[in-house]
Amino acid sequence: MKKIINQPQDVVDEMVAGLVSAYPDYLVQVPETLVVARSDDFDQVALVSGGGSGHEPSHAGFVGDGMLSSAVCGQVFTSPTPDQIFEAIKASDKGKGALMIVKNYSGDVMNFDMAKDLAEMEDIEVASVLVDDDIAVEDSTYTQGRRGVAGTVLVHKILGAMAREGKSVSELADYGKSLVADIKTIGVALSGATVPEVGKPGFVLDDDEMEFGVGIHGEPGYRREKIKTSREMAEEVVSKLKAEYNWQEGESYGLFVNGMGATPLMELFIYFNDVKALLAADGIEVGFSKVGNYMTSLDMAGASVTLIKLDEERLRLLNEPVHTIAW
Amino acid sequence: MKKIINQPQDVVDEMVAGLVSAYPDYLVQVPETLVVARSDDFDQVALVSGGGSGHEPSHAGFVGDGMLSSAVCGQVFTSPTPDQIFEAIKASDKGKGALMIVKNYSGDVMNFDMAKDLAEMEDIEVASVLVDDDIAVEDSTYTQGRRGVAGTVLVHKILGAMAREGKSVSELADYGKSLVADIKTIGVALSGATVPEVGKPGFVLDDDEMEFGVGIHGEPGYRREKIKTSREMAEEVVSKLKAEYNWQEGESYGLFVNGMGATPLMELFIYFNDVKALLAADGIEVGFSKVGNYMTSLDMAGASVTLIKLDEERLRLLNEPVHTIAW
Repeated sequence: MKKIINQPQDVVDEMVAGLVSAYPDYLVQVPETLVVARSDDFDQVALVSGGGSGHEPSHAGFVGDGMLSSAVCGQVFTSPTPDQIFEAIKASDKGKGALMIVKNYSGDVMNFDMAKDLAEMEDIEVASVLVDDDIAVEDSTYTQGRRGVAGTVLVHKILGAMAREGKSVSELADYGKSLVADIKTIGVALSGATVPEVGKPGFVLDDDEMEFGVGIHGEPGYRREKIKTSREMAEEVVSKLKAEYNWQEGESYGLFVNGMGATPLMELFIYFNDVKALLAADGIEVGFSKVGNYMTSLDMAGASVTLIKLDEERLRLLNEPVHTIAW
Repeated sequence: MKKIINQPQDVVDEMVAGLVSAYPDYLVQVPETLVVARSDDFDQVALVSGGGSGHEPSHAGFVGDGMLSSAVCGQVFTSPTPDQIFEAIKASDKGKGALMIVKNYSGDVMNFDMAKDLAEMEDIEVASVLVDDDIAVEDSTYTQGRRGVAGTVLVHKILGAMAREGKSVSELADYGKSLVADIKTIGVALSGATVPEVGKPGFVLDDDEMEFGVGIHGEPGYRREKIKTSREMAEEVVSKLKAEYNWQEGESYGLFVNGMGATPLMELFIYFNDVKALLAADGIEVGFSKVGNYMTSLDMAGASVTLIKLDEERLRLLNEPVHTIAW
């Protein structure tokens, strides 16, 4: 294992320390926690997210005006504990309650739910939106149903803009539920990720192999085969997305190509170009684009493609300005 | 070689196509060139940069209001040709001339210089600022003197803000020269980068090896040894930087930790944390911070540390807002 770290058990503590020290105009650490919160003042429903670390800049990089109010950083690929999530809620509650954005992993679902109970005992209104955008497989290593992956970042963005505009906890929860239903993602991996405390990759692909549908913690995908061209990979993932959406010519989607961490931006732009061309061939308009490393898996090589069905309101909310380090 | 690409010889064409297609509100491609220019209107000295591709988001990701006016994308790790650079100048010249920001590689220096001659034949005033911030070695594979690396991004930012404020070509060139003298960088590599048309890494490090001072095209550094902790790497690079600056307690610097492409953001924040702690121990204040992948080397693992000596004006210019996809 070659990484720029000190002791493997200290990576999250030191990562959070570096993050808030680098960007004090955006972020503060809630003392004695691994919660990262907005450093400025605000008055709205608190938008809280988080999960295991190793997906940077998710989620702390999206804390700021117009997106998240706070993010809780679990250990690497490990759900944060209920007490830490509760700290994140308390740090950001302004008397208007909190909406939690939770990726669909059994540990996260359980722990965020327990944190909700803790908050309600202190009369803080809390609701949650569950993100399960990964269409690759049903049920997985840590998940009942579908996994939550890169589409979560779009949920942060859209609900973040709405929360700033003064929507209530229940309005955000209702809107979020229908929003998530229209966001779908599928990934490809070219290499496995190495958790520092484990010291070796979670899975190994041969020098000429790739795998479709791998999860962001290295959960198995649905097919392993010889490396394909970008265009062939795009054909595979677009056909899967098309089968989900059953789209009609003339519809408009947002297209988000997300890197897994070790794939250069050059490749992400090439892949974006191929996916967009296939959508265009189907008469699908791309009304919003985003390309980069936003929901990573440590040092995994690969990329995911997320589509979001657009309407005027969603497009407006996606384009609202934010003050974060990573959007 | 495992990459998300089509034909290796097409990577730059397809990357530029994807880039401008993803971000039409920011960027346009000058027809029949690999020049990426601002898509909005402006009235100031043109700020032109570029170089070989493979360093994304440099340089096209910094094209936009408050930074570059245009960027020319050479083939991978290859200087752009004089005619392409001339196209970039013409695309952005508003009758006030152009300032070129050039990294110190022999091919770049020669080709940007020839482009300047071409422009002057058409009565466009052109000057250049040469960036040679890499303190690792004197002379290198493609360089006489010191190489230009990640510090170039800070030059884009500061001169970009000044150009927007209406400074002339000669004012920018003069300011740029003294600015570059106060920006210094040193890198560490954990793995080599693979140029698509070559198909194998430019150099290979063993599973437990790292190298100090590697250049952004894989040029040799100054020492190869067993992998160290983040803190030990930080000690090495801070001692080198200290010897250059000969700093005094109480001085203020900007600290920029830049990823080489395949190193996760988590590690960059840990490394930042260690470098900043060593600066603090020397009584050096960090008045500006930036952490992320800004001047990459394809799929190289590693990171560089850049310091810039701050004064009020530089700090103000670094913090001016911009409209780019990557700053």
